Amino acid sequence: MKKSIGAKTILYPTPVLIVGTYDKTGKPNVMTVAWGGICCTTPPCVSISVREATYTYGSLMEQKAFTISIPPEHYVKQADFIGLVSGKDTDKFVATGLTPVKSDVVNAPYVAEFPLVLECKVIHFHKIGIHTQFIGEILDIKADEEVCGEKGPEIEKIKPFMWAPDSYRGYYGVGRHLGKAFSIGKNPK
Amino acid sequence: MKKSIGAKTILYPTPVLIVGTYDKTGKPNVMTVAWGGICCTTPPCVSISVREATYTYGSLMEQKAFTISIPPEHYVKQADFIGLVSGKDTDKFVATGLTPVKSDVVNAPYVAEFPLVLECKVIHFHKIGIHTQFIGEILDIKADEEVCGEKGPEIEKIKPFMWAPDSYRGYYGVGRHLGKAFSIGKNPK
Repeated sequence: MKKSIGAKTILYPTPVLIVGTYDKTGKPNVMTVAWGGICCTTPPCVSISVREATYTYGSLMEQKAFTISIPPEHYVKQADFIGLVSGKDTDKFVATGLTPVKSDVVNAPYVAEFPLVLECKVIHFHKIGIHTQFIGEILDIKADEEVCGEKGPEIEKIKPFMWAPDSYRGYYGVGRHLGKAFSIGKNPK
Repeated sequence: MKKSIGAKTILYPTPVLIVGTYDKTGKPNVMTVAWGGICCTTPPCVSISVREATYTYGSLMEQKAFTISIPPEHYVKQADFIGLVSGKDTDKFVATGLTPVKSDVVNAPYVAEFPLVLECKVIHFHKIGIHTQFIGEILDIKADEEVCGEKGPEIEKIKPFMWAPDSYRGYYGVGRHLGKAFSIGKNPK
């Protein structure tokens, strides 16, 4: 039997995206975004939702550019910290020891230590409610050599993690391989 | 060293969402959506991106309602199959043996066998490129008793899975618990 648990924001898996921007003085900042994901194949686009109260919101409006760095599981503490404090008061790169690198395609910094980076230009934004959704066109992806196999990035080498936006709020790594998409379901029963 | 791999749609983790709609004759249909996720906390909203060519697109426009059922890992074959065929030609409930249930809050069906369901009313949609993004306000969530603990749904009981939208296209389960959000990062070094 299913029971009603009310109008909540529970969905699995939910990503942990480290969004990099420059503020109006050119200072690099990062924020942790869980409300986001790919939203279009052609052109390749990703959406991120950000509250107006955040420091990143102003920088996104100013620069119309951002990066997404995917943290690997051994950086879970730093990714969590980046979501706990504001760039208004704290230099999060200094506080975490992470290294900002300027993207060569958009005016935004990414995190050198994280193995996969999306470089995005804001092409739309719209206020939904408390969150404003920014749509970024992905202009390039950068990946560390060590996380690439013959055909490109490999999730098992990157070791990204997810967040469970329920009352238990756990972070979880990637589990076992279950099968190949567009293949395992050919005989569905 | 990071290398450029081009403008692609690679992001980890990416969800596997089973979107349920009724067509204009009232026939239930499901589609597999990977481009989606929570996009606003208040009101609670989720976004899904759907191509105009799909059967679901017409039903979303007609009904302005949908559900998202989260498949557990032992239904990975069925979830993959639902993404391989069109509701135009195939009754996917019959083909998979899954059971449609009408939501009691929106005019859309969900999958009885899947343990967590979001019931959504379309409040916005906008064409980004090949995909149109639909924003659904979450009016209620239904969960099976067996996947709930004292504080509500638990990811370890639901056993959702993710998709890796890279060249290897694997499905992966949930891995080990890494820590608690808004907590583990208090001391980031």
